[in-house]
Amino acid sequence: MRALVYHGPGVKAWEEVAEPKLEDDTDAIVHVDAVTICGTDLHILKGDVPAVTDGRILGHEAVGTITQTGGAVNNVTPGDRVLVSCVSACGHCHYCRQGRYGQCLGGGGWILGHRIDGTQAEYVRVPFADNSTYPIPPGVSDEQVLMLADIIPTSYEVGVLNAQIRPGDTVAVVGAGPIGLAAIMTARLFSPARIIAVDLAASRVAAARDFGADVAVNNSADDPVERINELTDGLGADVAIEAVGVPATFELCTRLIRPGGRVANIGVHGSPATLHLEDLWDKDITITTGLVDTYSTPTLLNLVTTGRIDVGRFITHRFAMDDFADAYDVFADPGTSEALKVVVS
Amino acid sequence: MRALVYHGPGVKAWEEVAEPKLEDDTDAIVHVDAVTICGTDLHILKGDVPAVTDGRILGHEAVGTITQTGGAVNNVTPGDRVLVSCVSACGHCHYCRQGRYGQCLGGGGWILGHRIDGTQAEYVRVPFADNSTYPIPPGVSDEQVLMLADIIPTSYEVGVLNAQIRPGDTVAVVGAGPIGLAAIMTARLFSPARIIAVDLAASRVAAARDFGADVAVNNSADDPVERINELTDGLGADVAIEAVGVPATFELCTRLIRPGGRVANIGVHGSPATLHLEDLWDKDITITTGLVDTYSTPTLLNLVTTGRIDVGRFITHRFAMDDFADAYDVFADPGTSEALKVVVS
Amino acid sequence: MRALVYHGPGVKAWEEVAEPKLEDDTDAIVHVDAVTICGTDLHILKGDVPAVTDGRILGHEAVGTITQTGGAVNNVTPGDRVLVSCVSACGHCHYCRQGRYGQCLGGGGWILGHRIDGTQAEYVRVPFADNSTYPIPPGVSDEQVLMLADIIPTSYEVGVLNAQIRPGDTVAVVGAGPIGLAAIMTARLFSPARIIAVDLAASRVAAARDFGADVAVNNSADDPVERINELTDGLGADVAIEAVGVPATFELCTRLIRPGGRVANIGVHGSPATLHLEDLWDKDITITTGLVDTYSTPTLLNLVTTGRIDVGRFITHRFAMDDFADAYDVFADPGTSEALKVVVS
Amino acid sequence: MRALVYHGPGVKAWEEVAEPKLEDDTDAIVHVDAVTICGTDLHILKGDVPAVTDGRILGHEAVGTITQTGGAVNNVTPGDRVLVSCVSACGHCHYCRQGRYGQCLGGGGWILGHRIDGTQAEYVRVPFADNSTYPIPPGVSDEQVLMLADIIPTSYEVGVLNAQIRPGDTVAVVGAGPIGLAAIMTARLFSPARIIAVDLAASRVAAARDFGADVAVNNSADDPVERINELTDGLGADVAIEAVGVPATFELCTRLIRPGGRVANIGVHGSPATLHLEDLWDKDITITTGLVDTYSTPTLLNLVTTGRIDVGRFITHRFAMDDFADAYDVFADPGTSEALKVVVS
Repeated sequence: MRALVYHGPGVKAWEEVAEPKLEDDTDAIVHVDAVTICGTDLHILKGDVPAVTDGRILGHEAVGTITQTGGAVNNVTPGDRVLVSCVSACGHCHYCRQGRYGQCLGGGGWILGHRIDGTQAEYVRVPFADNSTYPIPPGVSDEQVLMLADIIPTSYEVGVLNAQIRPGDTVAVVGAGPIGLAAIMTARLFSPARIIAVDLAASRVAAARDFGADVAVNNSADDPVERINELTDGLGADVAIEAVGVPATFELCTRLIRPGGRVANIGVHGSPATLHLEDLWDKDITITTGLVDTYSTPTLLNLVTTGRIDVGRFITHRFAMDDFADAYDVFADPGTSEALKVVVS
Repeated sequence: MRALVYHGPGVKAWEEVAEPKLEDDTDAIVHVDAVTICGTDLHILKGDVPAVTDGRILGHEAVGTITQTGGAVNNVTPGDRVLVSCVSACGHCHYCRQGRYGQCLGGGGWILGHRIDGTQAEYVRVPFADNSTYPIPPGVSDEQVLMLADIIPTSYEVGVLNAQIRPGDTVAVVGAGPIGLAAIMTARLFSPARIIAVDLAASRVAAARDFGADVAVNNSADDPVERINELTDGLGADVAIEAVGVPATFELCTRLIRPGGRVANIGVHGSPATLHLEDLWDKDITITTGLVDTYSTPTLLNLVTTGRIDVGRFITHRFAMDDFADAYDVFADPGTSEALKVVVS
Repeated sequence: MRALVYHGPGVKAWEEVAEPKLEDDTDAIVHVDAVTICGTDLHILKGDVPAVTDGRILGHEAVGTITQTGGAVNNVTPGDRVLVSCVSACGHCHYCRQGRYGQCLGGGGWILGHRIDGTQAEYVRVPFADNSTYPIPPGVSDEQVLMLADIIPTSYEVGVLNAQIRPGDTVAVVGAGPIGLAAIMTARLFSPARIIAVDLAASRVAAARDFGADVAVNNSADDPVERINELTDGLGADVAIEAVGVPATFELCTRLIRPGGRVANIGVHGSPATLHLEDLWDKDITITTGLVDTYSTPTLLNLVTTGRIDVGRFITHRFAMDDFADAYDVFADPGTSEALKVVVS
Repeated sequence: MRALVYHGPGVKAWEEVAEPKLEDDTDAIVHVDAVTICGTDLHILKGDVPAVTDGRILGHEAVGTITQTGGAVNNVTPGDRVLVSCVSACGHCHYCRQGRYGQCLGGGGWILGHRIDGTQAEYVRVPFADNSTYPIPPGVSDEQVLMLADIIPTSYEVGVLNAQIRPGDTVAVVGAGPIGLAAIMTARLFSPARIIAVDLAASRVAAARDFGADVAVNNSADDPVERINELTDGLGADVAIEAVGVPATFELCTRLIRPGGRVANIGVHGSPATLHLEDLWDKDITITTGLVDTYSTPTLLNLVTTGRIDVGRFITHRFAMDDFADAYDVFADPGTSEALKVVVS
């Protein structure tokens, strides 16, 4: 079969490789029908994720069809159309018993396209298939659910649910790339009074409005702290969601919130931030971090199936598998391409 | 001034009475600009609420203008337009400290039009004004907020919040009168996957759809348990909200829900129900009851002000104060009048 | 091997049967080192549990040693000493993903000694071994943990945790048999201000005091409602735990609690109770029911291992396996034997 | 009367001043029977709290007797023995309605001995007396409750409750001064499996054991991260409580915890800390800060009255009011005096 293979920093190839085989009783083999590319894949290609070594097939998001299952797989059978989740879960360890699948101690967690071969291929071996794949209801298309593999549960769990958004809240989302937009979309499920998006790029500020932000602040021109204070009688936001991953945006989040407010960090950080405890120690704030667990995936599938959210709208570009290199180029240059998410099928 | 006075079962009059005066430092006097009638007022008129005695001015919901305040009132001043809440709160007792104002031990709770004179009058004395009135933001009309005095916080707190509705839930609302419709409207704030309304009257089934029910079952013809099981792979609803107040509808709620489900009772009951513990003991269910506390009133005001909910749509009929008797007639006969809520101003 | 076999209502035998074999990849075979008898076993013997048919080996609680494991079992290996839990869990279904193992839709739940052969035998086949057995730390004896198989997590999860006991609470426990005593013991983990036990039998009232009740009321002589009101300025208990399973005790629980209070039902009920909604509709109460899920078993093991609770003290009588019939006689007649729990090893 | 008056950095005097008078309807005048000194008072004396100006009477903790009340005070009357809380609460503002009295927007919060004259005097005026004083049950001594004015609710609310300690948890408390010891004492109310105290001073390490720490680590000699990892199979603590207020101890807390763990900061910080988001972004951690709200004071009073906690043991030294200067000297030099808390009466 063919697959997108990593060959060290800056080098990748769509090339012929051996088909995957069942290795454990809990594995399934899935024919990949549609796959996307994640910002993390770009980090891997830069060499930022040392656990990914030469020869690894990338990708941790897919929709596909089960072709084979191990003897201990009970929830899916060959022929089933499934969502392949970015997180695999043993289902038994200390963390899996609490639904914290992202922290699985039993061999799961984020492993696809990271510690084992991934989904950017014609076939993929999915460990712990019962807890790592989700049957797709009839009548629901690949594109309608593909974003549930990673980006939507990430923003929903690590952003919206960790921040405990409630009806009537004022919510600030800092960063309006795909993760921030997904946070805006899923924050609306809890009917905040207003969502304020903050970004430096005019195109992203516009996209934020389009995805449901009530106010969008370009912080290259406007001071978001001032704007939020105006809207909240000087108190600040109830919730700030960090969706960038650099110290400045995290620190901005801690300045945006009111006493008693919550900061939910989604961004992947490469360096430390400053925490101004001299200001914050008496402000009753809560800060959370997190890796997606995908415990919300069945709920999100239910919301997609009943038409409550339309996550297919993130898909801006479509490619055939043989054009995988083009898909990467377009996704890696959103300034030019205006890409949010691409689908390869 | 003139007021709607109760003179024993079946007898009421719109008549001249003395104007109220400040009695405690924490009182305010409010000129009533708009008032509504509650189902509870009809119960009082039947003689079902013995605490209400001859000579009592009825009414516990209003929008008005502060005319006088006692020396210890700090949050409102004469001239302020305010919502007068159905619940007064001392702010200091065991229950008020927990936000359970409806259970106030310090002289508050539901007292207006019950233990003291109420709002169906030109002026009303409001005890504990700081915790019992809510300033109305400029630009918001009387009709936009009047329903926040009682019906909306009742359905939201005692129904939706007690039931802990979450995105993706299947919610059954049994009873589609005003309280049930308010439960449907406010349940949507949490983006359930589907809301199923159940009522015996065709007009209410239609209203339920209009207020946001995805499925509306006329249980004079259809079996709601069957319908819900079909929609939920045989599991049952996550949540059932009782909005009628008779044993049969409560018992229906306990049959509609899945293992792990919640029943939130809003209905005012006059007789006991049967609890089928022989079926329910191992089903992990939660049943809640409650009187409105109005802790959610500031949140609901915020949602009205930012346009997230339109509670003015409950108002189907409008009257001048001198036609108060007509207002009662129309409200008491919704089968003919199709009244949901009336406003008298 | 020998086992305790049910042969229809009233008939049981300790007799020779075939040894169990692995049937699924997720099974383990366990050599039973110590086993106890549950009140439910007595119900089965009366014929009250029709799912249990002639030929079934009884028992759903044990400590033992793994002798064989299926190919998909990863958490335990032959030679491991384990607790065999009363609840088995597939680990993948809707309910298992939420930790509600008792409601497992994938073939688990309470199956041992019920739908499949149980633990009152020399060997037992345990399905879904990874989620149904718990390794016992070195240095911890069989008797120190045997009660974690059922009675302790039942009282802790269905009673104490469902009731959300908090430091400072006034807790009433109605029924001071083994389940009620386990509720008293585990309620103390949350430091309530006082625990009031209620029972009709003088010996149980005494046992309640011994297990940590601050006040023990014999309700054949005293009115527990009066006693609790005296202790709580007339408010009532914060929490009532039902540990009997008859309508009268359930209804007593609903009378004991204050506005805002919680009733957690543990009792197994055979007939409906009356729910006095005409009194309770405006009291802000919460009622919960439940089957044990055993999600708390790792926590409880940790508390036993660190000496925070001593659950071995429930064991009042000890028998060899060949005297299993005697063990049943003693356990079934606690009035004479003063048995709380027996151990057979 | 005489009072302890601040006269600028480093200067204080026990001197004659005018007696306080009622200023608002919600005020009470309290005769001070017993008072203590807080670490914050030492900060004020160093000039670290600029809001405190020359002439201010210090102190925000007392037990006393009501001598006068304003017209709107309903919960206490002259002659009542009361606890004077460090936090005053208007009872009506956005934050007070949520029980966040420390963030009161209506003129309360921490004001005694800060923005208005305090409790280190013969008499003190207490604003918002209904929400700022707590009647002391008969038979309970001044010393039994004095620590409920500040230190105990601070450690309980900001440390133990914010950290959501649960039975079976592994809890690390960093800093074993009075605040840390109070965190250890109140953490035990939730029955953690083990409490590990960390401090640099041998005497505090010993005190930590005495107050209930299971393990006490002197981090001048031992590495607490290693010790905790040994005790937790390498996972880390479930909870870390910061009870010092410097960057190093805060950063230690973030290293001590397991994925999914919580850090509750109690320490008063004067400079920023480094938050290692490059390590923490995917660890599912929660960090909280807070000022005491005293919402837990009634619960703590209940626990003291029923003998569940003995907070009087913090008192190591006793002084007469005329020896107030000595009391400060002893409290300010715990290295020599081994003082935890002093009482002046």
